[in-house]
Amino acid sequence: MRLRTKAELKYSFAEPTQIIGLLHAAKSPDQLLLSEVLEVSPDTPVSVDEGLSGDRRFRACLSGEVSVAYQAEVENNARQLLPVAGRQHVWGELPVEVLPYLLPSRFCPSDQFQRFSQREFGAAGDGVARVMAILDWINRHVDYVHGVSTAESTAAHTFTVRAGVCRDFTHLGITLCRALSIPARAVSAYAFELDPPDFHAVMEVYLENDWWLIDTTRLAPVEGLVRIAHGRDAADIAFLTTDKPCQLINQTVQVERL
Amino acid sequence: MRLRTKAELKYSFAEPTQIIGLLHAAKSPDQLLLSEVLEVSPDTPVSVDEGLSGDRRFRACLSGEVSVAYQAEVENNARQLLPVAGRQHVWGELPVEVLPYLLPSRFCPSDQFQRFSQREFGAAGDGVARVMAILDWINRHVDYVHGVSTAESTAAHTFTVRAGVCRDFTHLGITLCRALSIPARAVSAYAFELDPPDFHAVMEVYLENDWWLIDTTRLAPVEGLVRIAHGRDAADIAFLTTDKPCQLINQTVQVERL
Amino acid sequence: MRLRTKAELKYSFAEPTQIIGLLHAAKSPDQLLLSEVLEVSPDTPVSVDEGLSGDRRFRACLSGEVSVAYQAEVENNARQLLPVAGRQHVWGELPVEVLPYLLPSRFCPSDQFQRFSQREFGAAGDGVARVMAILDWINRHVDYVHGVSTAESTAAHTFTVRAGVCRDFTHLGITLCRALSIPARAVSAYAFELDPPDFHAVMEVYLENDWWLIDTTRLAPVEGLVRIAHGRDAADIAFLTTDKPCQLINQTVQVERL
Amino acid sequence: MRLRTKAELKYSFAEPTQIIGLLHAAKSPDQLLLSEVLEVSPDTPVSVDEGLSGDRRFRACLSGEVSVAYQAEVENNARQLLPVAGRQHVWGELPVEVLPYLLPSRFCPSDQFQRFSQREFGAAGDGVARVMAILDWINRHVDYVHGVSTAESTAAHTFTVRAGVCRDFTHLGITLCRALSIPARAVSAYAFELDPPDFHAVMEVYLENDWWLIDTTRLAPVEGLVRIAHGRDAADIAFLTTDKPCQLINQTVQVERL
Repeated sequence: MRLRTKAELKYSFAEPTQIIGLLHAAKSPDQLLLSEVLEVSPDTPVSVDEGLSGDRRFRACLSGEVSVAYQAEVENNARQLLPVAGRQHVWGELPVEVLPYLLPSRFCPSDQFQRFSQREFGAAGDGVARVMAILDWINRHVDYVHGVSTAESTAAHTFTVRAGVCRDFTHLGITLCRALSIPARAVSAYAFELDPPDFHAVMEVYLENDWWLIDTTRLAPVEGLVRIAHGRDAADIAFLTTDKPCQLINQTVQVERL
Repeated sequence: MRLRTKAELKYSFAEPTQIIGLLHAAKSPDQLLLSEVLEVSPDTPVSVDEGLSGDRRFRACLSGEVSVAYQAEVENNARQLLPVAGRQHVWGELPVEVLPYLLPSRFCPSDQFQRFSQREFGAAGDGVARVMAILDWINRHVDYVHGVSTAESTAAHTFTVRAGVCRDFTHLGITLCRALSIPARAVSAYAFELDPPDFHAVMEVYLENDWWLIDTTRLAPVEGLVRIAHGRDAADIAFLTTDKPCQLINQTVQVERL
Repeated sequence: MRLRTKAELKYSFAEPTQIIGLLHAAKSPDQLLLSEVLEVSPDTPVSVDEGLSGDRRFRACLSGEVSVAYQAEVENNARQLLPVAGRQHVWGELPVEVLPYLLPSRFCPSDQFQRFSQREFGAAGDGVARVMAILDWINRHVDYVHGVSTAESTAAHTFTVRAGVCRDFTHLGITLCRALSIPARAVSAYAFELDPPDFHAVMEVYLENDWWLIDTTRLAPVEGLVRIAHGRDAADIAFLTTDKPCQLINQTVQVERL
Repeated sequence: MRLRTKAELKYSFAEPTQIIGLLHAAKSPDQLLLSEVLEVSPDTPVSVDEGLSGDRRFRACLSGEVSVAYQAEVENNARQLLPVAGRQHVWGELPVEVLPYLLPSRFCPSDQFQRFSQREFGAAGDGVARVMAILDWINRHVDYVHGVSTAESTAAHTFTVRAGVCRDFTHLGITLCRALSIPARAVSAYAFELDPPDFHAVMEVYLENDWWLIDTTRLAPVEGLVRIAHGRDAADIAFLTTDKPCQLINQTVQVERL
């Protein structure tokens, strides 16, 4: 699919504020970047980090009312969907850089979920079968509801209250996978046909020597995702991290098919 | 059943420490107190509160190494077991003094469990049928394990990690009942045939105009319980509450049938 | 002070919903009820509990769009302000009915605060001096900010994030007092000169054989409070408790001096 | 200082268990590895990962009663102590690989501590001065006590209960630094003169273009640390991570000066 994505953020910074932004479409094996523009106005020095991973973060120091606009065109035909079958790896087979995604993180306390995951999904075969069982379980037991969770909510909260938004669904999916020794990580994305349009959080699991994108909420087709960044959980992939509180004035996200 | 219960506690108090003790067998409609002795050595002034509820707490200020021994004989033939059927009350029918047991408490955050309880047990009829469904669920999903929980663990923790001891089982049972508008409270007890012998925590639900004792752990027969005190959760019914840390030296609990 | 208070609540109940309401001005030693009217429209059967404590809750089963209006006139000249000095009681001196307010509750985990309270306030004399030190500490360290806390936030959360609203200030004040063996409870109130007008949460401490009202937020004069109900924390004194989610349409609170 | 370190772990694995071990002394700029031996008995295949960072983890699948013994000699004279002054970096100056250590993690919810950190340490100059203020604060306000925390305790718990062990002190130090935009990470170590001998957890802060080791507990001299591994918090640097529960039989750690 060939997609054009646009994000416009307008914030007010009461004092000079350091920011890390994650808005750039990733240059990843499953996504070809055709063109992009990042504009900050008023004009401000911005540095963009290009990591080996293909994720790109930008850094700046912003003050006053600032608009950040990002636009890109990507083509993601190389993206493959989670296969219908596939075994999970024993730890000894995993690449070293995948190992951190077995461990608990800020919003994914997988260390607390071993008994539950083993009991609920332990019998569901292995690899893809278990991931499918987890996705199915989440969709049967958790309601997509705004206002139940906050930016501090962990997967344990979502598991208890049984409601949340995309970020919470993603955290719960990651947590249950990790508790079963399936490496899992969070991915931020622009999502075609997401209604209402917004930034989206999905997850990625490592099986059969590769990472596979999954929308735990089932709200957006994986083929229509424009990936931005990946990390352990929402803390790593926030589209805006700041060193001081700031005020959102306006924000729009758009994705269209070309 | 006619039962004799003995508890001996030995503690060391580094400085004068205020204590509230809950060791006395309750004088309740389901339990006849035949005899009892409380001994504190070295000899110390102790005041015993006799509330309308039949629960009795004692207060003292203790210092140094102190032994507290309590012994009682009770007969509990009037105790009735949870009936096989019975409807739960609408709120309007409940006695005022029962209403607090609908509300969340320190270790029973029932406000977080409404979606789960409704979805899991909402279809299980009403009253006794729901309580039975909750008990069954707990026994299928939670393991009785020492060392997983602490004195700060709430029912949300037990629900997540799926393991705990009698106190945790009781808190989870109470929480799930309250989330379904079934009044539930915690009861401390001496328990015949509990192995190993120890203080026990059970719960009580209000249905059909009465409170019914239930051992959420299924470790001790309800007929063999010598009830001590009831309250919202473990915070209310601790056998020893102190205003300063103190050190346990030794503790034994014994229950025998007469 | 002679005060007239009015509250109008409009809610939508998607299905028949059981409710417990706490809107009535208390008939307490520090408050004389001159007149009152409770109106529910459309007209619905409502039962009002008159407890020994002087707090009154009403119960009903509501459906569809319902307005609840309460109006009262009270005179509170008998209310006494926290004296400038006064010792706290040893546990042995406290009336039995005061003891529960020494214990942790849903939003006030005082069991976790003993080290902090002892270290921070232990040297601040006793009784009133300690309470004043706690109030002063809260006002120096916690910001009054909307949107940081939720209906699930405990005093431990407020203590960490150092921000909250009246309910959070009250919970933190209660928690710190209890951790020092000073009985403390939550009180809901209408508050004269509170800006913007709203229901208010304050606390009450037990010293010198009596309960004393304190506004932990310092936003409303104690002389201008019309007390509604008291309890262990916000769970006990919510102006509306329901057995199902419902939707707030509109709510106004007014207090004027007569 | 030239140090010899020995660790012997004996565990029982009820079924084949995947493990990741972090026992190897790091090959880092501040530490020269002179010799080392890892022995697993009964003999089992073990793979050792050598990352760019100099940390080395080993992986194996263990079953039954297994002993793991590691012994190494290192020389750490190149290690430099935190300088007496030094500025912290603005975000734009930090190497990309340092950025994750600004973010919250499983046991270090720094997102909740911005108000506290700013208020308490914001005025304490910058960089080293702030870190010193944090260390000083921790040592004045937190007690080193066993049994208060568990393997699930976060820095927010330690901040509330004001007690913990080396892992908790480290997590709190990291959390407070990150809340002030000072990159901080956890380091596992063997520690000379730690009494009683055990694995130790310390922290590292990034200032003046380098990482600096700090023992938040002040129990062991930094010159006597043999560093093992670093990560976001204890989840990343556990000396043993397993995919199933296992039982510790015996464990000894020894460090001696050569």
